[in-house]
Amino acid sequence: MMKNYTTIFVMALCMLGIFGNGNAQIRNDEVYEYPNLNEQNYRYHLNIPDIDGYKTLKCDFHVHTVFSDGKVWPDQRVNEAWNEGMDVIAITDHIEYRPNKEIIAADFNKSYEIAKKQGDAIGMLVIKGSEITRKKPLGHLNALFLKDSNKLDVADELAAIDEAVKQGAYILWNHPGWPNDTSTIYPVHRELIAKNKIHGVEVFNAWEAYPKVIDWCNELGLAPFANTDVHYTSADMYRGRFQRPMTLVFAKEYTEEAVKEALFAGRTVACYNSTLSGKPEFLKSLIRESLSVKVINPEKGTIEITNHSDITYQIQYGTLMYSVPLYPNQTMRANIRSGADVTFTNCVVGKDRYVVTSLW
Amino acid sequence: MMKNYTTIFVMALCMLGIFGNGNAQIRNDEVYEYPNLNEQNYRYHLNIPDIDGYKTLKCDFHVHTVFSDGKVWPDQRVNEAWNEGMDVIAITDHIEYRPNKEIIAADFNKSYEIAKKQGDAIGMLVIKGSEITRKKPLGHLNALFLKDSNKLDVADELAAIDEAVKQGAYILWNHPGWPNDTSTIYPVHRELIAKNKIHGVEVFNAWEAYPKVIDWCNELGLAPFANTDVHYTSADMYRGRFQRPMTLVFAKEYTEEAVKEALFAGRTVACYNSTLSGKPEFLKSLIRESLSVKVINPEKGTIEITNHSDITYQIQYGTLMYSVPLYPNQTMRANIRSGADVTFTNCVVGKDRYVVTSLW
Amino acid sequence: MMKNYTTIFVMALCMLGIFGNGNAQIRNDEVYEYPNLNEQNYRYHLNIPDIDGYKTLKCDFHVHTVFSDGKVWPDQRVNEAWNEGMDVIAITDHIEYRPNKEIIAADFNKSYEIAKKQGDAIGMLVIKGSEITRKKPLGHLNALFLKDSNKLDVADELAAIDEAVKQGAYILWNHPGWPNDTSTIYPVHRELIAKNKIHGVEVFNAWEAYPKVIDWCNELGLAPFANTDVHYTSADMYRGRFQRPMTLVFAKEYTEEAVKEALFAGRTVACYNSTLSGKPEFLKSLIRESLSVKVINPEKGTIEITNHSDITYQIQYGTLMYSVPLYPNQTMRANIRSGADVTFTNCVVGKDRYVVTSLW
Amino acid sequence: MMKNYTTIFVMALCMLGIFGNGNAQIRNDEVYEYPNLNEQNYRYHLNIPDIDGYKTLKCDFHVHTVFSDGKVWPDQRVNEAWNEGMDVIAITDHIEYRPNKEIIAADFNKSYEIAKKQGDAIGMLVIKGSEITRKKPLGHLNALFLKDSNKLDVADELAAIDEAVKQGAYILWNHPGWPNDTSTIYPVHRELIAKNKIHGVEVFNAWEAYPKVIDWCNELGLAPFANTDVHYTSADMYRGRFQRPMTLVFAKEYTEEAVKEALFAGRTVACYNSTLSGKPEFLKSLIRESLSVKVINPEKGTIEITNHSDITYQIQYGTLMYSVPLYPNQTMRANIRSGADVTFTNCVVGKDRYVVTSLW
Repeated sequence: MMKNYTTIFVMALCMLGIFGNGNAQIRNDEVYEYPNLNEQNYRYHLNIPDIDGYKTLKCDFHVHTVFSDGKVWPDQRVNEAWNEGMDVIAITDHIEYRPNKEIIAADFNKSYEIAKKQGDAIGMLVIKGSEITRKKPLGHLNALFLKDSNKLDVADELAAIDEAVKQGAYILWNHPGWPNDTSTIYPVHRELIAKNKIHGVEVFNAWEAYPKVIDWCNELGLAPFANTDVHYTSADMYRGRFQRPMTLVFAKEYTEEAVKEALFAGRTVACYNSTLSGKPEFLKSLIRESLSVKVINPEKGTIEITNHSDITYQIQYGTLMYSVPLYPNQTMRANIRSGADVTFTNCVVGKDRYVVTSLW
Repeated sequence: MMKNYTTIFVMALCMLGIFGNGNAQIRNDEVYEYPNLNEQNYRYHLNIPDIDGYKTLKCDFHVHTVFSDGKVWPDQRVNEAWNEGMDVIAITDHIEYRPNKEIIAADFNKSYEIAKKQGDAIGMLVIKGSEITRKKPLGHLNALFLKDSNKLDVADELAAIDEAVKQGAYILWNHPGWPNDTSTIYPVHRELIAKNKIHGVEVFNAWEAYPKVIDWCNELGLAPFANTDVHYTSADMYRGRFQRPMTLVFAKEYTEEAVKEALFAGRTVACYNSTLSGKPEFLKSLIRESLSVKVINPEKGTIEITNHSDITYQIQYGTLMYSVPLYPNQTMRANIRSGADVTFTNCVVGKDRYVVTSLW
Repeated sequence: MMKNYTTIFVMALCMLGIFGNGNAQIRNDEVYEYPNLNEQNYRYHLNIPDIDGYKTLKCDFHVHTVFSDGKVWPDQRVNEAWNEGMDVIAITDHIEYRPNKEIIAADFNKSYEIAKKQGDAIGMLVIKGSEITRKKPLGHLNALFLKDSNKLDVADELAAIDEAVKQGAYILWNHPGWPNDTSTIYPVHRELIAKNKIHGVEVFNAWEAYPKVIDWCNELGLAPFANTDVHYTSADMYRGRFQRPMTLVFAKEYTEEAVKEALFAGRTVACYNSTLSGKPEFLKSLIRESLSVKVINPEKGTIEITNHSDITYQIQYGTLMYSVPLYPNQTMRANIRSGADVTFTNCVVGKDRYVVTSLW
Repeated sequence: MMKNYTTIFVMALCMLGIFGNGNAQIRNDEVYEYPNLNEQNYRYHLNIPDIDGYKTLKCDFHVHTVFSDGKVWPDQRVNEAWNEGMDVIAITDHIEYRPNKEIIAADFNKSYEIAKKQGDAIGMLVIKGSEITRKKPLGHLNALFLKDSNKLDVADELAAIDEAVKQGAYILWNHPGWPNDTSTIYPVHRELIAKNKIHGVEVFNAWEAYPKVIDWCNELGLAPFANTDVHYTSADMYRGRFQRPMTLVFAKEYTEEAVKEALFAGRTVACYNSTLSGKPEFLKSLIRESLSVKVINPEKGTIEITNHSDITYQIQYGTLMYSVPLYPNQTMRANIRSGADVTFTNCVVGKDRYVVTSLW
């Protein structure tokens, strides 16, 4: 029996997507459309300034789809991230954990391919990755900028890393404090780092922070990351705007090559819930480009500090026993004398260590 | 070669889900958790009052998953709807349109089965449905409360409807104004309605309204519906709280049987963007239970109207040339004399016809 | 010279006030009105439940006007409080501190009289009070429910209190930790309390809390208060909804007599920034009436807790090392077994002591 | 009898104002301070771009205080406007209407003097003005940049204007459609305009718009204004951020002289509720500086438009039957070909005439 009734549905997705493609948009007695209530074509523009001649890209290098144990189709991961203001995502499905494999028949490259096509259509960078998913002590590592994910499906865990390195991959150590709730560098990690086979580490993952890990970055030369490790829809994980963890990457331009160059050069800052973790020079540049100061009374030190970014900075100064917030797109009046130290308690440069700088 | 490295990942989803299951939740130097920023365990409580001795259930009877042309795994559709304050969803994947079928191998019952299991786990009603997806004039119809979706996969469109009716299904006519932008009842619809094989119709679908359709409901005894027809993540479709279309069902209790009884009895109101479409008696009951009036000055008619619901009512009265809003959880002071007519311009009882009632 | 040009301005305030009085409201080429953007006629409805057969009134017993050192005319204090969801305010201008007295010529009763007239017009209770404003150790005390404020203008500070008591006043000890940043009961206070000449004390004032003071309430039988002590506009003091300190009074009805009876009977809870301080029985009743619990899985203890109030409750339970929020008008899913202790860390019954209760 | 008990209250206002002056800010068992919840030191930063080499100043040239029929003390008007993101206010109390004059003894210059002192303290420009308040046909006019308001207290209405002009004042015609709900230019206005004794006119006042008036500006060379005419607290008038009417002034620098120069040169745009009324060249410059366009697909015309301002622009293009919003700090994806006309329906250049321009 021939079934010819599917042919007309090419247009089925026309209602999704860009205003005004396909049918004319109308408002009359037959149909009254409200595309203004449609979130799909809108993207939150997160104000995080460019610094030091680089573009500041908001990136998420840890994303799952239905092809491993995620709950969202790959192309929708791209739309979702675009909508939420991200510039770059990596698709990093597990190699070794595929609970849906009885239903979904595909190789390890497929989820990236679907996502990449959508990325190209809407002009968003999508990075090819895979999560090497092993028991502790090794744990989970994301291999980014892969050529062929299928070759990582090997029994030996170090062989999988070697294959990724051979493909030129950047290796990111994921959630070092998960799942046994201690953040430990095992000998295998020290060895891989020494051999330049681990390049970065997550300081934030999902809704978790690992306070000691920023010290490892300093000591071992790792780049700090904040990623979602999103399995569910991101709206179901994070409430409100700007709650999604993101890795800030300072790149020469908005290309995959430039992102890769920046990662290997260590130009990242981890950002979650307005906490920034990373090297002091990057944090100071972000502060400098985010804030402007207007001096109202130089003798008294009365100043106005305007925060032009979407990061809520927290500052402590003078005799204050606590931090006060510099809210996004607001100005705060304060008495802070010229040259006086201000501690940015949301700008973490080591465990319990913060950026200290003067404002004017 | 045996692969034993997947066995440990049973716990992989423990980080997703309910606080405190699995590992203890901690905040120390190793791991610092922010579950308060985790949206998963929170649900928006939409205040829409119960009326006339019935529970008012917020329902979405039109939902797609990756098993047809949606972008989300079935169990996540349940979580997503729970999170957004829905009480009931129906999984209604297309029978005839399955663009992912090269990748996803499953019969037509599978997506419901996955969703139902999650519904049972979190205590949410999930209805088994399928979308009969044919060319115009018939168009698309949802068969709800099915027993076996596979039996709907037949070439003849009327045979598919007959099979659904034989299973006791409720038949909903979807988006009558889509895709050719006119809302037309064709002879086939009149015939099916006359034979009691179409029971309800969408007045709202996604971000579209069909202004004439509420008159069809009145004339032909159809129940009005507002559904999302969600393909993408719902956060990617609807901005903000209470923007998702929903069919209000007035049910005797929170069970599938009670929902079915209410639908066949025609006890529904379509609700989108604070517009309510339906029978005057239901709308008046919703208004009465949503609002309270405090008389400040009976002679002048000075009153305070408090809106205890999350619906923004719009009222026009006296010499006003426009409506004024009664915002959710706010009180409005107004001069409206006892017995004076007030037009609720967001409460639609026919094309360009609204509820008119007095407030005190 | 006769000036007759002022006579037409009786209507000058018609544009302010209630929709539709005076001129018809219009939208045409001459004038296009946007009263929906007018905040004046709207009031935030703060959901705090009634308890134990009493009405829960939201009260501010510490308000200044331009007649002492405030910045707002008395009738506007009434509008402002109404707008922000308050039920009762007391006008409590300083007796001894009147920096504007060169410009403003009026006795000590005048500011109340102006406010009371507006309260009567819009149906809001306004209490006559004055702030007896002396040096420490006595400090500042509000005398509430006065008959004649002028009689408090006497040199001797204890004589001023005696006069207030003679008029039947309720005496409230203001901001015990201000201005020297220690909260100290001096002998004069113990003596006045013993003689029943101080009846209540501020636990919160403006943006300050006095953590020890709730213990004084317990030991000495004082009623706890939270007041604004507003001098500027309240919008200039408090950001967002529900940030204004308020004294919750559990009154038999919405009359001045009932408020007075409730105060002398000690039926108050201090509320600021979602922290509630007071007697355990009142706090438990507020919790019970604010929250509803739906049991999803009795064996696992999976429950849904819905917060129907505008207070963000904070709960800690099981092995949690921190509190999690119950947001207003949201439901939280949690695993809490029947009979298990839950600590409400926002419900303060003594210094560092909180309500502990079970949810189901 | 000597009263010495007032002398200590100089510090009474130290709790109001700038963090950290006076007492150290503390958090301990005695006092726990929440200055982060204090709105006073925060100011909303309204993003409206500078254009054409000028600073864009947000100004309100129509403000009342308790010295005429307003409800707020003059210095608080300055704080309130600063808090809400204004750069410049004029104090414009009525000359002829002073309902509080039995209580408040002051000349016509006093309210400005009090406000100016506060403006100097916090670095905000305050302009000296008075409202000449006469019957129709003349109606109400603000004289701005006065030297001595007392001299305007004369019986003859034209003499009052002459005196203001003699002092170098800028004369603004207020709310031409109020109070009799028609916007009419009477002969007296045409005569005064011809003699260069009226220079500007309110297109928006409070919550009213006068649609015809922008055509008068074009025909008669008047500058358009949007002012609050605030009598109550502004929070009690306008809900939410950016709802306050404001006159955008394009000034060479942030000084009174530069504001005056810009007004006489006609460099203003009236702005209320995201509607901008004024000359096409200014509106086009605002659009150009507010929006950025990223081309995604030049062939299809797929572009991303990012709105970096706090103005919600509304655009209509192609076959759309309605406008779609460009929300502040968001990006919208749209299909608009290079060179295609886009109508900015919130940018009004005449009655029912809008800016039409291409985006790329």
